[in-house]
Order: sequence, then structure tokens, then C-alpha cells
Amino acid sequence: MIPEQLEFSAIHAAYADHTLTPTELVKMLLARIAAYHDKAVFISLVPEECLLAEAASLEAEGPSGKPLYGIPYVVKDNIDVAGLPTTAACPAFAYIAEKDATTVARLRAAGALLLGKANLDQFATGLNGTRSPYGAPRSVFNLAYVSGGSSSGSAVSVGAGLAAFSLGTDTAGSGRVPAAFNNLIGLKPSIGRLSAAGVVPACKSLDCISIFANCAADSMTVLNVAEGYDPADAYSRSPSNHPLPNTPCLGVLGAKDKDFAGDREAAALYETALIQAQSLGWELVEIDYTPFLDIAALLYGGAFVAERTAATRAFMQKHPDDIHPVVRAIIEGGHKFSAADAFDDIYKVQALRQRTRAEFAKCDVLLLPTAPTIFTVEEMLAEPVRHNSTLGIYTNFVNLLDMIAIALPAGFRSDGLPFGVSFVGPAFSEAALSGYADKLHKALGAGAGFTHALPQSSYEAPVDGVTIVVAGAHLSGMALNYELISLGARLVRQAVTAHDYKLYALATTPLKPGLAQTPGFSGAGIAVEVWSLSPEAFGRFVAALPAPMGIGRVTLDDGSVHPGFLCEAYALEGAEDITSYGGWRAYLTER
Amino acid sequence: MIPEQLEFSAIHAAYADHTLTPTELVKMLLARIAAYHDKAVFISLVPEECLLAEAASLEAEGPSGKPLYGIPYVVKDNIDVAGLPTTAACPAFAYIAEKDATTVARLRAAGALLLGKANLDQFATGLNGTRSPYGAPRSVFNLAYVSGGSSSGSAVSVGAGLAAFSLGTDTAGSGRVPAAFNNLIGLKPSIGRLSAAGVVPACKSLDCISIFANCAADSMTVLNVAEGYDPADAYSRSPSNHPLPNTPCLGVLGAKDKDFAGDREAAALYETALIQAQSLGWELVEIDYTPFLDIAALLYGGAFVAERTAATRAFMQKHPDDIHPVVRAIIEGGHKFSAADAFDDIYKVQALRQRTRAEFAKCDVLLLPTAPTIFTVEEMLAEPVRHNSTLGIYTNFVNLLDMIAIALPAGFRSDGLPFGVSFVGPAFSEAALSGYADKLHKALGAGAGFTHALPQSSYEAPVDGVTIVVAGAHLSGMALNYELISLGARLVRQAVTAHDYKLYALATTPLKPGLAQTPGFSGAGIAVEVWSLSPEAFGRFVAALPAPMGIGRVTLDDGSVHPGFLCEAYALEGAEDITSYGGWRAYLTER
Repeated sequence: MIPEQLEFSAIHAAYADHTLTPTELVKMLLARIAAYHDKAVFISLVPEECLLAEAASLEAEGPSGKPLYGIPYVVKDNIDVAGLPTTAACPAFAYIAEKDATTVARLRAAGALLLGKANLDQFATGLNGTRSPYGAPRSVFNLAYVSGGSSSGSAVSVGAGLAAFSLGTDTAGSGRVPAAFNNLIGLKPSIGRLSAAGVVPACKSLDCISIFANCAADSMTVLNVAEGYDPADAYSRSPSNHPLPNTPCLGVLGAKDKDFAGDREAAALYETALIQAQSLGWELVEIDYTPFLDIAALLYGGAFVAERTAATRAFMQKHPDDIHPVVRAIIEGGHKFSAADAFDDIYKVQALRQRTRAEFAKCDVLLLPTAPTIFTVEEMLAEPVRHNSTLGIYTNFVNLLDMIAIALPAGFRSDGLPFGVSFVGPAFSEAALSGYADKLHKALGAGAGFTHALPQSSYEAPVDGVTIVVAGAHLSGMALNYELISLGARLVRQAVTAHDYKLYALATTPLKPGLAQTPGFSGAGIAVEVWSLSPEAFGRFVAALPAPMGIGRVTLDDGSVHPGFLCEAYALEGAEDITSYGGWRAYLTER
Repeated sequence: MIPEQLEFSAIHAAYADHTLTPTELVKMLLARIAAYHDKAVFISLVPEECLLAEAASLEAEGPSGKPLYGIPYVVKDNIDVAGLPTTAACPAFAYIAEKDATTVARLRAAGALLLGKANLDQFATGLNGTRSPYGAPRSVFNLAYVSGGSSSGSAVSVGAGLAAFSLGTDTAGSGRVPAAFNNLIGLKPSIGRLSAAGVVPACKSLDCISIFANCAADSMTVLNVAEGYDPADAYSRSPSNHPLPNTPCLGVLGAKDKDFAGDREAAALYETALIQAQSLGWELVEIDYTPFLDIAALLYGGAFVAERTAATRAFMQKHPDDIHPVVRAIIEGGHKFSAADAFDDIYKVQALRQRTRAEFAKCDVLLLPTAPTIFTVEEMLAEPVRHNSTLGIYTNFVNLLDMIAIALPAGFRSDGLPFGVSFVGPAFSEAALSGYADKLHKALGAGAGFTHALPQSSYEAPVDGVTIVVAGAHLSGMALNYELISLGARLVRQAVTAHDYKLYALATTPLKPGLAQTPGFSGAGIAVEVWSLSPEAFGRFVAALPAPMGIGRVTLDDGSVHPGFLCEAYALEGAEDITSYGGWRAYLTER
């Protein structure tokens, strides 16, 4: 049997064991969905016969080449799925989509099985989940509390174990706040990394498809399957990788900026997250949050709201009364701004962005609360705009700065409601941030979803770069190690060469070792270190090496082969054979 | 005596020879300015006593550390200079600047001597030079014709030999069209590369300080002196270098896109420029200019004009009647656009940008006419908006695409009026484009300014990259050469190693050469090639090399030392010494 929280690894293990088939899984999930107590989660479901036919066809094809083979998921109902209505939570706006959104098409091609389309704050306008004529989805932990929005149903479906992952959209935090309120990973990728073609726009220049999942590994799998340049999306960008240090320095809130809207338990849970981050060996540095807050305020408080007006005005003119009153008031607010106001606000963001650069100069990424607190549905309906603004104070700025974020579960208040934190980093740093998020997620032990299931999979950012084997003055703590450090290199591990390497002390000044593969010789191997650095840094490193040192291939005792130090043949003539010391460090101390 | 066209090298040579001093030069130029027949060029001059005091103080300090020592220049009068009025060509707007614009301060610190502030189309709104209450500067070639704008006086001052270079600003082509009409180099750098702090904004998100000079070398000198991150400018960016191939593929207009407003001689001069480009060994490919033209049309025809409204509205409200009527009509046009319209146009540009990417996939840079034709002042005043739009069809799109351009002289019509062409390339490719512009400028022979003086200095883009010496299968035309080509490497030159290198044929499959420095040996050297590639490409190349090959340092017969191929010591044992063949290519053919 599969666990209630649907991690991909568990599903795939069950498929591989033949203890489960995609057909069985989707049948089970349709039953779970039917039995689920909150009826506001879905706006439409894929008809059972279609879903079963798709599962059967998938089984006939088999899992080969399908990284999401039989993985059941849900999309927010502002994303097109061929043959299903797209409502954006506005019945009068609904249309039957002619084709899949690009991202949905890519997931389908990778073997993912779509279950249905989830409720949302209408036109993705809101962070709370109460702004829909299809009802207000509730936090999986307490029906009195909001689910967060705008991707409300998407988050609940994963948090409740009704799907293995879901797509939301995120302009101001809609892919993160609901992750916090349902104890999930919420990945808000770089603008344009996932195609927005086939998504109903909210703020077209800022909208991102986001991913809810039980663990960082799963959200990265979805991202890597679905990403890629799409000429149909004006904001589409080719994926790339912005590397960050393995051991990050985290920018965190200082005392003056810690605002939890009076929620002392949330405040304490943030402190716990910081302490855990430190215990992972990460450095914390306080940043000035003011410019971030100023940017956040502009998203709904300034002319950017006219992006929403632009997105809906054709519909709005014909159907003013078919729009949710709170959403309508917000979107109509955009009419009061002129084009000159819009440019003035764009300039303000640009000026604030320069101010945030000074804060990012102090750290690699931010670690912030995802939302300061959670509200009941009743509270939210009483103060629909003010409380919504409160929810966004730590999320709103991210898209305006072209940054990314990943929300993760960070523990529970004594009333059982969840709290989340988010890493925020530069565009295209998804891999690095997911690595951090996975570590902290596990360290905090809040698990995922309503079951608090601990993640079974792990995610580590792939080393985008070149490994290099060093054997002499570049070893940790030795004279030339700074050359590696200053190029951003990081130590991967201590290692030993294959048995047929000899080490020589060259007659150079300063004294240098020469590592030489010697076919036929069999010794104990030479102690070396494996470092990793970017291709560019590696190029600069090699280009700067003085004779007689060179870079060739070094074989380690595990059989792996890496670029590494060698030296010119002439330099070995007459050099002292120091192989018996076992390494350069030992030679220097023991000779 | 110095030439009438004031190239930096000539001025510095005269200073070095002690045949001229900065004081003498500025006195001479003040006399030239006083004698110049077009009185509309300057709005204000630096008072003579101040200028002479500054020259004297500069002479006392000497030229050390001052790359622009005693180089006289002019700035457009929308750029602040401490103590002088900034008018933006609007007397009612004028204020005395309290401090130098950042860029002016950097030029001053580098030893440049400011002569005065030049006339412009009011609030930098125009491409023609007739929209100023201070008069309409005329082309240095014919007083009946416009000088181009908005940086009219800046261009004329250099074209007439009144200054060695000048600063303009460029939002829609204001740094390029006047270069074409006065036979100059006009460099429009990347947005934010030169600080815009202290510049009266036109379209704040697009404005760039631009440089007029007699040759590409001079404009790059100014750029490199004045560039650098400035926190006071919200759009400031740190300089970097986008490398481009030494031998570019040029995107050019096809028959359907060649629009010269009926100017057949201009059309013929563009063809001549294309033929010259081909004779320089550059490939030409026709692009579809439609998306560029569509973007160009948006700059004045859409909501972007509200950037101008935003920039001037505070002043405009109080002084509506103090604004030039054509400029006022344009700027007031921005009022009719809402914030939603602004975002709609931003989306349109973004969608068109994706379309232009497909065209840039065919080529490295564009080579376009700078302006399709030139108009008389009379023609321009009769059709102030329509003719102005015609002037911008090849320049307007550049800033909206975050690209750069360099305009260069490209010959003369039979009536003696000049024609120009422009290279357009990606942000931060100024060095590469200046290299191309310098070659084509010289090949076309139009010289600079009213004297048609041929440029004496040269500019070649520095090789940002790593050189590598190859001796075997990576030589041009040999089996593994594609590895270098596919990494974007380019052949720098054929070369020969120092005398103490031996070449071996290794017992590898396939057959490979081993280059080995052999202290004490003296031979004829080994034939090799020097290639250049980016640090990143070099890193990837080295990381992929199979054993026993490695990269160390190779010394050439000219004494220069470069990264280059070597091989592991063990591989040389028993290998055949093939030094006598003189190189791997000879060995393969002659053995």
C-alpha cells in the first residue's frame, strides 16, 4: 500500500514492485477525492473514463523515458487543459480549452496523470483562498482556517494526499502562502522558466507557474521535466543554473523587521528555523528588510494593480457583476492609474531593487517567514483586504525583483496549525535553493501535508562544474588553497589516487609535488582532495598555472577519473620519490 | 599644430612632444567656437577663466593616471555640470546644477576638460535638432540641413572640430542619428553602463548617455573611463563584456525592408557598406526587420511616450506654455494612456522581443542604416512629427530591446551630405561592436567630421579569453578541431614553440603527438597554433581531455607563454621522437 502523502519515490517503488499500477492509484485517489470532507477543493475533475483510459494507455507504453510515469497531479483552474473548462474561478469567464498549456503538455508527455482542476482566488487575485464562488478551500489542518491562496485548491489537494503534486501560479505569493498553510513545499521558479502559455494572466510580467509537492526532490523533478524555452510565452526564458555555495550565508530578519501580526508562536517557530539553520552550519546575517517591504507594498498599493486591470478589462467591461466583489474592487482600482503613474512605479521598483542589492551583498539568500500568521475564514471575510495584505509581506516582493523562492514546512503552533519559512534567491538558483530547503525541511521535522509524513527522498543541488583533484599546495589549509577559494571552489571530499600513482618532490622553488601515473607500479595511492568549481573558474584556474604544473586526468582508487594536477615530464627527472609518505601533507610534516 | 578633427592620439602626441599644452588647446578651441558660423550649437560655455584655471591646474598635476588628460569635450545640456545651468533646452526649466553628473565627474577626474553645454531637442524629445528655443544646429556639411537630434549640438561640436568628443543622450536614436548627419562615430552603450545620475530623464527606463567621437578607439576610451556601477542611478549596471566572434555574421535588411524614404543615394551607400563588410570577410544574412519596426513604432506611437509625461509632468503642470509646441504635443500625448495601456504595451514589446530573438539566431549583430535619409530644416519644420518618425525607423527599437549600437560614417551623397550605418548588438558587446565599427569605418573611407579626416587610431576588441597552444589533432582542419570550433574558439595565429621543445608520436590509438619541453635541447621549434576561447569554454575543454593529454604552459619562440598541450610523463616513454618533422601536420603527411 502507498502512504497517504504521495511522494514520487514511494509511488515509483510500488510500481516497480508491481504492488500498484497507475490505474489502481488513480482509482484510489478518485475515491479519496470523493470522500474528502472539503468540497471546495476542485472546480472540475477529469472524467473517470478519460483518466482510466489515459492510465491504461500509459501502462501499455510502460515507464521508459517517462520521469513522471503514473504520478497523479492537479492543476489550478487558471491553467488550460485540453477539453476541460478554464474558469479562473469565475463561471462567466469560463471557456473550454482547445489545447493543453505548454507546461501541462510537457507533464503529460512525461507520464503525469492529471486528476482535476483546483479552486483558486478568482483571477488569481488574493493570497487567502476565500475569494471564489466555488467556495473557500480550508487548511488541511483545521476547517475554520483559510487554505491560503490564490492557489488554494492546488495546495489542499497535495496537503490532503489527494495528489502527488500540483501546479499553482504565483504573482505575489500564491504558490507559497498556501504551501505554508498546508505544510508543503512550494516552489516559485524564475519568471519564464515554466512556460505561462495557456495560463490566464494575472500580472503578465510577473506570473509564474508554481509547484506544490511533499518534498524538494519532487518539486525539482517536476520543474526539470516541464521547464524549457517556449516561443509562445513572451516571458519565456531558457533554463540555466545560478550556482550558490553549498554552505550558504542566510539573510534573516532583525528585531525591527520581525512582524508576525501578533502571532507569538509563529515568531517562535521562525526563531527555531533560524537555530536549525545555524546548526546545519549556515551563517546568519541580519538584513534591513525595509526596501523589500517597500517593494511588497507597491504590488497591490501602486500602479502594478493595473496589470490585473489590463489582463481582465475586456471581460470586465461586459461582465462587471459576474466578478467577486473584493476582486472587482481590487482590479477596478487599477483604472485610477495613468500610464505615467505606471512608469513612475516601475522606476520606484528599480530604485528599490538597487537598495536590495546592498542587502544581498551581505548574504547569498534570504530565509524569511512564508507568511506572518494564519487567519480564520471568518476573520478573512471580515477584513478581506487588510488581512490579505498582511499575508503577503514576506512574499510580494519576490517576483518584482525577478527572484525565486521555495517555501517549506517549519513546524506547528500548539493549536496544530502549520508555519512555514521560505528561501529567497536569485533567478535560476532553483537547484541550490531546493538543496537548502531539503536539508532544512528534514532538520525541522514538520514533514509534509496533514499526515506530517517525513520526506523519504533527498535533493542535493547537482555540482554544476568541474571537479579537480589537487595533491599539493592547493590542499585545504595549504599555501595556495586560497586560489581555489577565491574562485568559488568548494571541497567535495578527501580521496586517494589509484595504486599506480607516484608522488615526487620537484626541485622547484617553492617546493612542489609532482603526481605521476606510473603504469605497472602498485602502491598505497596518494592522498588528494577533490574540489569542485564552475567551468569558467576552472578555466581561469588552469590558464593561470605556472610551469611545470599542468592539468590532465587523475584516476582515484574508486576508479573515477577527474581533471587533476600533473607535471611536465622534464620536471620529474631527478625529483625525489616521496610516494612512501602517502601524500604531500604527510611529506611536509614528517620529512 | 593639431589637426582640425581632434583625435585623442593626435592631442596626446602633441602634448608629449611639448608642441601643445592643454591651455593652448582650449584657447584655440574657444577661438574656433567663437568663429564658428552656426550659433545654435551651444547653450552655455564654461567661463574662460574657469576653463583656463582648470587647464593650468591639470598641467600642474601632469598627465599621470589621467587617460583623458587635456582632452576637450562638450556635454549635452540635459547633463548636470556643477555651477552651470542645466536647461534641457527649456529656459523656464533651467536650474544651476549643484554637482556634476556622475559621468561628468568621472571624466573630470580622468583629466578631460569641459568646454560647454550643447543644444538639444527640448527634453531630448526628437531626432532632428529643430526643437529648441536656442535655435536649430545644422549639419556641419550644409546649413540648410538638420544636424539630427536630440543630441544636436553635441554632434556638431565634434563634427566641426570644436571638441574632441562629446556626450549626448540616447533613448530612441539621439546618440546615433546626429552622428550620421555629422559624419561621426556615435556609441549608444548598454543601459546603465554609464551612470544616468545627474541627467534630466526623457524615458527613464531607456535613457543612455552616449558618446560622439572621431573614431571608435576614442569612444571606447571615454566609455571605459566613465563606466562603472553607480548606486545613485536606479538603472546602473556593472560593466561586463559580451564577447562576439572576431569575424561576425551580420544581419542585414532584405529587399522588402530597405526603406530609404526615396533617397536612392542613401540606398546605394548602404549597399556599398554591405559590400565592404563582405570584403572584410564578414558573412551577411538577410533578416526579417518587421518585429524591429513594430517595436520602433511603439516607442512614440504607444504608451511609452508616457515615460516622457512622467519625467516632465511636475514642470508641465506649472509651465505648459513654456514648452516647445511640438514637444508639448508629444508629451501631452502620454496623458491619454492608462496604466493598463502601459502594461499592454510592455507586453507587446516583450512578445516582439521573442520574435527578434529568432532573427538574432541567424546572425551575431545587425548592420543597418543609421537613418534612412536626411531632411532640410525647412522640410522638418513643415512635417515635424512625420519626418522625425522617419528618422528613427532604424534606431528606435534598440533601447527597448536592451541592446547597444554604434553608428559610423559610411560615405557621402553626391551633394556632399553624409550617410551612416550602425552595428546593433547585445548589451555589453561594446568592445566587439567597436572593433567591427573601426574596421568598417576605415574600409569605407568617409573619415570623420567636416574634414573627412581619416582615423589615425585603431580599436580592436580585447581578447577576453584564454589562449591555448595546440599541436596535434586540434590544429585547423584536423580531426578534433571541431571541439574548439564548437566551443566558440577562434584561431589567433600560427606559431612555433621555443627551441627546447621536442615532439613525440605517442603509442596511443588514435595516434597523438606529445609535446615535451626538454631543457638543454635546441631544435627548430615545433609548428603549433594559438587559439583563443572564453574562460568557460576553456574550462570545459580542459575538463573533457582524455589521458594522457594535459594542459600546462607552452613557451613560443617569441618568448610568450600560453596554456597549451602537454602529456603525462609515462606516455613519452618509448614514444617516437618526431621533432625533426617540425610539427604534427608535417609528420602525418611526410612519414
